[in-house]
Amino acid sequence: MDEVRTEAWWGRRAWALLSAVRARTPLVQCITNLVSMDIVANAMLAAGASPAMLHCLREVPDFSPRCDAVYINVGTLSEDWLPSMRAAASAGRPWVFDPVAVAASGFRMEACLSLLALRPAVVRGNASEILALASRSDDSFKGVDSSHDSSDALQAAKALAQSSGAVVAVSGAVDFITDGIQVVSASNGVPMMQKITATGCAVTALIAAFVGADPSDALVAAACALAIFGLAGEIGMESARGPASLRMHLIDALHGLDEQTVTSGVKISLLP
Amino acid sequence: MDEVRTEAWWGRRAWALLSAVRARTPLVQCITNLVSMDIVANAMLAAGASPAMLHCLREVPDFSPRCDAVYINVGTLSEDWLPSMRAAASAGRPWVFDPVAVAASGFRMEACLSLLALRPAVVRGNASEILALASRSDDSFKGVDSSHDSSDALQAAKALAQSSGAVVAVSGAVDFITDGIQVVSASNGVPMMQKITATGCAVTALIAAFVGADPSDALVAAACALAIFGLAGEIGMESARGPASLRMHLIDALHGLDEQTVTSGVKISLLP
Amino acid sequence: MDEVRTEAWWGRRAWALLSAVRARTPLVQCITNLVSMDIVANAMLAAGASPAMLHCLREVPDFSPRCDAVYINVGTLSEDWLPSMRAAASAGRPWVFDPVAVAASGFRMEACLSLLALRPAVVRGNASEILALASRSDDSFKGVDSSHDSSDALQAAKALAQSSGAVVAVSGAVDFITDGIQVVSASNGVPMMQKITATGCAVTALIAAFVGADPSDALVAAACALAIFGLAGEIGMESARGPASLRMHLIDALHGLDEQTVTSGVKISLLP
Repeated sequence: MDEVRTEAWWGRRAWALLSAVRARTPLVQCITNLVSMDIVANAMLAAGASPAMLHCLREVPDFSPRCDAVYINVGTLSEDWLPSMRAAASAGRPWVFDPVAVAASGFRMEACLSLLALRPAVVRGNASEILALASRSDDSFKGVDSSHDSSDALQAAKALAQSSGAVVAVSGAVDFITDGIQVVSASNGVPMMQKITATGCAVTALIAAFVGADPSDALVAAACALAIFGLAGEIGMESARGPASLRMHLIDALHGLDEQTVTSGVKISLLP
Repeated sequence: MDEVRTEAWWGRRAWALLSAVRARTPLVQCITNLVSMDIVANAMLAAGASPAMLHCLREVPDFSPRCDAVYINVGTLSEDWLPSMRAAASAGRPWVFDPVAVAASGFRMEACLSLLALRPAVVRGNASEILALASRSDDSFKGVDSSHDSSDALQAAKALAQSSGAVVAVSGAVDFITDGIQVVSASNGVPMMQKITATGCAVTALIAAFVGADPSDALVAAACALAIFGLAGEIGMESARGPASLRMHLIDALHGLDEQTVTSGVKISLLP
Repeated sequence: MDEVRTEAWWGRRAWALLSAVRARTPLVQCITNLVSMDIVANAMLAAGASPAMLHCLREVPDFSPRCDAVYINVGTLSEDWLPSMRAAASAGRPWVFDPVAVAASGFRMEACLSLLALRPAVVRGNASEILALASRSDDSFKGVDSSHDSSDALQAAKALAQSSGAVVAVSGAVDFITDGIQVVSASNGVPMMQKITATGCAVTALIAAFVGADPSDALVAAACALAIFGLAGEIGMESARGPASLRMHLIDALHGLDEQTVTSGVKISLLP
């Protein structure tokens, strides 16, 4: 890191990465939960990526190696999908992991730990998920929504990054992204995004698209994707009358983002 | 029932139950059909509940007992999901049953009857579904949409409630809700809601959220959930230009409902 | 073909077919991909059809023969769904096939070829899909979005129609529909429809609804469904601010289409 990472630097990086997604249309295999399929696909298309929701084990050897990135989300985990997740994660492409509700059951915790061992480039979760995954414990489960602030999970995120080798992102009012040493914060977004199902899934898919377009720095890709998705939420909120219209305006805004809006709007900084 | 159940009483109850959902954020496991996932999750979030779409049999022992309620919907029934449905229905939590298209096949009818034997708190269907389920016959099948008025199914609903021990709700232009003795009508809603897929699934999920927030009276919970969802549809219809914008405005309205709107808007009454 | 098929003739046919869908409410079994469920169901309801997303093999013998048409889409193909697809395609009802991303894997190509042998009434794909299916080769795969113009696939479509006995439709900026001898073009639609996930799936489902309402001429049904869906997109685009609002306005427009709009708006012609 030779250059000084000012807020303006992050703005330029975010725009450069979004432009790379639009220019390269990264093909991203998404093995994601059944609730999130529509919003994940539409958010990725709006951002310029090419999502493909193939989940059949028989297709992984032919298909996954052709992808620019792989996105795996265990929200509606089942025994028959888990082998496909493992195979796609092992296909040699950069992959991004969303351990939804990791503490919901012992089975899910084991599945997530087995996936984590397959070296994701990025893991993104809410604070409760990152705390549970870092502690390898499902004792604290309170539901799929987080019962912790993201700052509560910062030390856990750093430890998880160090032990797993992944960049770890904790979503919340402020998002924290860490490689185990550096910590970056991203503070875009609006609270009502929590009232739309699968926004967390969608932004993790967007991270995969950014990593697929430029795999050189997963920490930067994750921070920029989180900030850009949150920025689209802020713009959407200006026209929203509730969570369903916010969902629509957010995706429209993501599609319409221009350089000026991105460079001046993303709020990312490196924590001291 | 000591107090007199005037329309004003129902208005206060509906508001009290919606407030309880918002305050307690009931965790509801939803094993629902693949078409309905997005609208079910978004309607529940808009109402203040916490939906979780886990359907893996391996997770039921750990997860289902932690939930405030369980919602089971057979719209896209398959052999591999049925054991999870049975296990979740047997987990000791109040559960709500949506026997979508019960007469579509002999397999589906058998599956629904086996679920019904697991004592749901509430069963909600359209008139054709309730008639078929009460008669245990798939002879009359005409499609997933009802070919009967809700009033046609009133006697069947009472008989089904008595034989199953569940509160039975029949949706239609007027909804009827019965415990086998009392019959309550709820008359909110607009016809165009029939042109949005899975609105029936969403309102049944909302019943589960209401039962999860206050399990003391499933008849009242079901009537209030049906009326409130219909009321959100009426408000949404004021801004709608077709079924897709109605879907959006309905969810926005559900999120924004206030005391005055609910207490003066719900149309519930006890039939003599 | 005794009458002269002028643009006015096509306008009248398109309106007559849409009116038939609205009047007869054809029941269409949809075994479609997990991403497309919501938009497929909502587009069909908006057009006046009755979609039913049953995919369980045990239900096919009872259910599929009762349907007016069957729609099969392999977007999220898996080994456990393929036998249901084959059985439903063999149930004796007219069926319509969407070979999504047919070249994504050898397994998928084999599955699509086995389905093609079951005599669909209509096959609809983008140019890359039709080229791959006609050549029985998965060498050229670049992703689920087309990397070819529809006109590139015209000869392949004619050959595929002749070898399979199906009407073949190639979607693109201009859609081409052929029975192997005649070629019809339909030129409605707007480019932003490509940025909404599963619009191709939705229009293929609409073709199945049109075939279900009037099975007498699959070439005409396919051309009219493609043109009407595109016309709804054009009307929706007048109010859209991005892909998510286009999705909403398109479905609203599909629901609200009137005779004047359809007869004057569809752009179909028989190529010389």
